Amino acid sequence: MSASSSSSSTNLMAGEEANGGVTVLPGVEDKYGGVVTEISRPMDPSTFSALLQTSLSNWTLRGKKGVWIKLPRHLIGLAETAVKEGFWFHHAEKDYLMLVYWIPKENNTLPFNASHRVSIAAFVINHKKEVLVVQEKTGRTKGKGIWKFPTGVVNEGEYIHDGSVREVKEETGVDTEFVQVLAFRQTHKTFFEKSNLFFVCMLKPLSFEINAQESEIEAAQWMPWEEYTKQPFVQNHELLRYMTDICSAKTNGDYEGFTHLSVSEHNQQGNLYFNSRDLHPRH
Amino acid sequence: MSASSSSSSTNLMAGEEANGGVTVLPGVEDKYGGVVTEISRPMDPSTFSALLQTSLSNWTLRGKKGVWIKLPRHLIGLAETAVKEGFWFHHAEKDYLMLVYWIPKENNTLPFNASHRVSIAAFVINHKKEVLVVQEKTGRTKGKGIWKFPTGVVNEGEYIHDGSVREVKEETGVDTEFVQVLAFRQTHKTFFEKSNLFFVCMLKPLSFEINAQESEIEAAQWMPWEEYTKQPFVQNHELLRYMTDICSAKTNGDYEGFTHLSVSEHNQQGNLYFNSRDLHPRH
Repeated sequence: MSASSSSSSTNLMAGEEANGGVTVLPGVEDKYGGVVTEISRPMDPSTFSALLQTSLSNWTLRGKKGVWIKLPRHLIGLAETAVKEGFWFHHAEKDYLMLVYWIPKENNTLPFNASHRVSIAAFVINHKKEVLVVQEKTGRTKGKGIWKFPTGVVNEGEYIHDGSVREVKEETGVDTEFVQVLAFRQTHKTFFEKSNLFFVCMLKPLSFEINAQESEIEAAQWMPWEEYTKQPFVQNHELLRYMTDICSAKTNGDYEGFTHLSVSEHNQQGNLYFNSRDLHPRH
Repeated sequence: MSASSSSSSTNLMAGEEANGGVTVLPGVEDKYGGVVTEISRPMDPSTFSALLQTSLSNWTLRGKKGVWIKLPRHLIGLAETAVKEGFWFHHAEKDYLMLVYWIPKENNTLPFNASHRVSIAAFVINHKKEVLVVQEKTGRTKGKGIWKFPTGVVNEGEYIHDGSVREVKEETGVDTEFVQVLAFRQTHKTFFEKSNLFFVCMLKPLSFEINAQESEIEAAQWMPWEEYTKQPFVQNHELLRYMTDICSAKTNGDYEGFTHLSVSEHNQQGNLYFNSRDLHPRH
């Protein structure tokens, strides 16, 4: 480790640096008065410990609040050192662990970890009032002859409407266009301590030929709507009965869900889902 | 470590156990053919390594698929050993890291990590057409004299409607009753790689006296709706303009959002949010 005595204490981008002759960890300041440091190369735990202590003193003097350490998987051996200095875990992804520490005496205002997974069910109905249904190779309904809507998990960074179109294409080969979110359901502790938001999406079919996904789907077909709803599996589940009622109300033209619109805020793009039929904009 | 030679290989609940005389890690089988082991007491990395190798062989022979290791924070020193055996990170909470490994040759079907944080904005309007607004002590609008809806993050395990009522109470002291989700917005990469789902909730005030939260709120008041909407901050932001239009449409009686209803599925309770006005149930 070499210390460059000419670097300033506010330039935290330049790797380990001199700060009055003392070496600190490289860090990037965030807009909430915090600092994020990413450990990118191996070092001795004792070296890391000394560096971390010096850095914490430096950041404390400079009024920093939250301190984040991003530790790649291959350097996980250094996590114990950070824990000994008082760090705890914020979140982890496949290839890294994010540790965090709060310097001020006041209660921490650190952002929460992600708490929800997002999944979709796709209601795809054609002009003959046939609904697109699948039998799954795995999971709860496996081998039971139950026909259900295509379902799936929305990918990281994917919009709900895009995820629903992708899942239908993957599972059945059918091209669709997103119409509306008809309803959504929130459940807790679906996976360890995490919650789930499950969006029921209506999609309009743009193609009709079925090409079922080899790996996950046992069979797929267009099934008369009445036949789908008569399945005991559908009749015996409160959630599925409600979903069926909502889809029927939508098909009969009475029901309005939420359509999507790309809307920006603070230069960040997002999608707003709302009842566009009931909104009469003033501009 | 003592091995009890009388325990059976299918009883994975009993701590380290004998399996043909070989000690394996304690594990709980999940319904997807996986096994979850929680490390609860310190051990030597070399002991852990041997135990893990034996366990993996055992689980492989028994056709197990996903292997989960829950490592408490104070035992994070053992993570390096698991990584060397091929484990990667699935997720982490404040006090533990969850590592995972996939035994089969086929692509893994492990559940995704949580990808979204969930937040709310509360639209609370009284019979005088005054809206409940706050000035925040921190964040983007700090010190700018901007009046905004109360906002907050939904807690782990909390329903959106409950979270909106709680946030209003905490920030303003006002008691409310949840009415509807009027709209929601999905954005990506709002915090590291994570996405956000932001729900605009309408609430009915049940009390009117304001008692602003010391720690986070600079000021709170009931403000005439027209005065709120005329703020340049509101006029200049596309998202806020849409939210204002939707809230106006709701106040004027035209707009229908999603109400909530407790609905069960597979013995699990959840809340379904849907357009109840437009739904005419058959039963």
